[in-house]
Amino acid sequence: MRTVEWHKGKVRIIDQLKLPWELSLVDYDDYQAVAKAITDMVVRGAPAIGAAAGFGMALAAFQSNAKDRPALLQDLDKAAAMMKQARPTAVNLAWAVDRLMRVALNEELTTVEDIRTAMLAEAQQLADEDVALNKRMAAHGATLVKDGDTILHHCNTGALATVDWGTALGVIRMAHEQGKRIHVLLDETRPRLQGARLSAWELRQLGIPFDIIADTAAGYFMRSGQVDIVFVGSDRTAANGDVANKIGTYQIAVLAKENGIPFYPVVPTSTIDLSLASGDLIPIEERNADEVRAPFGLAIVPPDYPARNPAFDVTPYKYVTGIVTENGIAYPPFEISLRRMVENRGAL
Amino acid sequence: MRTVEWHKGKVRIIDQLKLPWELSLVDYDDYQAVAKAITDMVVRGAPAIGAAAGFGMALAAFQSNAKDRPALLQDLDKAAAMMKQARPTAVNLAWAVDRLMRVALNEELTTVEDIRTAMLAEAQQLADEDVALNKRMAAHGATLVKDGDTILHHCNTGALATVDWGTALGVIRMAHEQGKRIHVLLDETRPRLQGARLSAWELRQLGIPFDIIADTAAGYFMRSGQVDIVFVGSDRTAANGDVANKIGTYQIAVLAKENGIPFYPVVPTSTIDLSLASGDLIPIEERNADEVRAPFGLAIVPPDYPARNPAFDVTPYKYVTGIVTENGIAYPPFEISLRRMVENRGAL
Repeated sequence: MRTVEWHKGKVRIIDQLKLPWELSLVDYDDYQAVAKAITDMVVRGAPAIGAAAGFGMALAAFQSNAKDRPALLQDLDKAAAMMKQARPTAVNLAWAVDRLMRVALNEELTTVEDIRTAMLAEAQQLADEDVALNKRMAAHGATLVKDGDTILHHCNTGALATVDWGTALGVIRMAHEQGKRIHVLLDETRPRLQGARLSAWELRQLGIPFDIIADTAAGYFMRSGQVDIVFVGSDRTAANGDVANKIGTYQIAVLAKENGIPFYPVVPTSTIDLSLASGDLIPIEERNADEVRAPFGLAIVPPDYPARNPAFDVTPYKYVTGIVTENGIAYPPFEISLRRMVENRGAL
Repeated sequence: MRTVEWHKGKVRIIDQLKLPWELSLVDYDDYQAVAKAITDMVVRGAPAIGAAAGFGMALAAFQSNAKDRPALLQDLDKAAAMMKQARPTAVNLAWAVDRLMRVALNEELTTVEDIRTAMLAEAQQLADEDVALNKRMAAHGATLVKDGDTILHHCNTGALATVDWGTALGVIRMAHEQGKRIHVLLDETRPRLQGARLSAWELRQLGIPFDIIADTAAGYFMRSGQVDIVFVGSDRTAANGDVANKIGTYQIAVLAKENGIPFYPVVPTSTIDLSLASGDLIPIEERNADEVRAPFGLAIVPPDYPARNPAFDVTPYKYVTGIVTENGIAYPPFEISLRRMVENRGAL
């Protein structure tokens, strides 16, 4: 079972809002609903969003009533614009949409039907590539894990955040499958609690031992010598190694450095943006403060209490030990090593 | 209105479990119920617990049917034992009970009525002393706050944690009453959410502008230049300036230092333990993990998911800019300055 897949002409998505209480599969038959599912975080995690957007664009092609290529391209343009708006910070989203649009714009495809078929094939390939790529990332990352390690993890970066397997949680899974005895401390990751709800659910399925902790406790466990290594994901990585990821990542990186604990983001090269000199250029999405006041409708304060809800933060490269990619592990200076990874030339 | 007070022969307590939803005053007319209110955390915060225990002991004296001194002392002994059991780790509790028992044992008081009157006066004085002391702390701390400052605050340290006024939140209140325009970022403070539930309620009553933030966002606001100064409380401070406080305090201190933001615990000298060379000697209470899994019964994960729940952490002195007490502000080296504060000789 994949987080996102094409199923009988529809886009099938695991509804992550229902986890860990219920495993619910939803079939979407229009791209607008797929875009909304991305916005509402029914599906979340950069690679999963990318795959959903890819299948969403294929769906848009099948949905269109266009009779010829120009009319279809017009419809697809509209769909692409809407899809890209679904989550502004997610670079995978625009990347996947652009990739599907390049197929649509291939002048060798002359009929509506040709374009539809090619787009679906491309979306499928994009999803398959993600799974293969994650396994390669996991294999590289698992070399960093020692038998007996306790690993600190933030947010959700598992199969649910990707098409399958996962990024940082994929590394953990790989280390576990290699027979290393590991224990995982899962930051619950407020406000949306992806660590407690999603990562815990995944580790339970995989039989990997874990404890959920409040986000306030991460520093305590690090300072008391109970954490050996930290793995996190990243939504977007700048050319200098600055990493944009779920709110709270920056704090963990600072605390890891302060306590001499290695800190590794696990990132597909598709999320490395070499055109971005520094992470401080990345706009930070501020989401509805109801996520703070009432996570999943569980009100902790009255609805008129003011709250702020930045969804991401940027971890400066100086706190980053290394960056695990599908092509190897990049170490400082990241300006050089990340470029090598992106160009698929592997580690230095 | 005080958190705990004597009202027409009863002990009146604000029920903190009902906040922020409802301001409920409960009048207790037997000491057993006061002890249970302490156990159940209807009243919490070391000074507030001390005051409740003091009034509870006075109540026990009025409750007793004893006709003479020996019989009354027997009843009070029983009450003292029960009261001390209400929260075994709360140092203020035993301290307040012992202080009331010393009055009862004063041999100059010969009649039951004399003892009752003297005990009530002592309980009242204990409560009044706490308020006066907090105002002195607040006055010292407020000198650190500049007009226009944004203050980061952790947990609850306000009137609700004391008899009135508060410690760190008392500093914030004083700065506000001095006419300084301030804004407060309130860490929600998982797992028990005292920042979101109690501190937000208090600031709203006082008309002080605030925003609640997830604990994951504190570092983001610090790094983006949106925090000018941090005030927290402390349950116990060691001779070297190490500070034990609510879980999450350590992280904030590290992040404040990393970002050049001053970090000040606000602590009554009664909680400074000069016999304790280092904070690392303070045992850390690990509370029921249901507080992580289901805060206030709002289940975020299934009850069988494993979780860890350390309730406190220790912030090493190297992250502490200064320590605000009722006798002045202590600065490094804390071995010297804290001793001066405790000995009531004021700042160097």
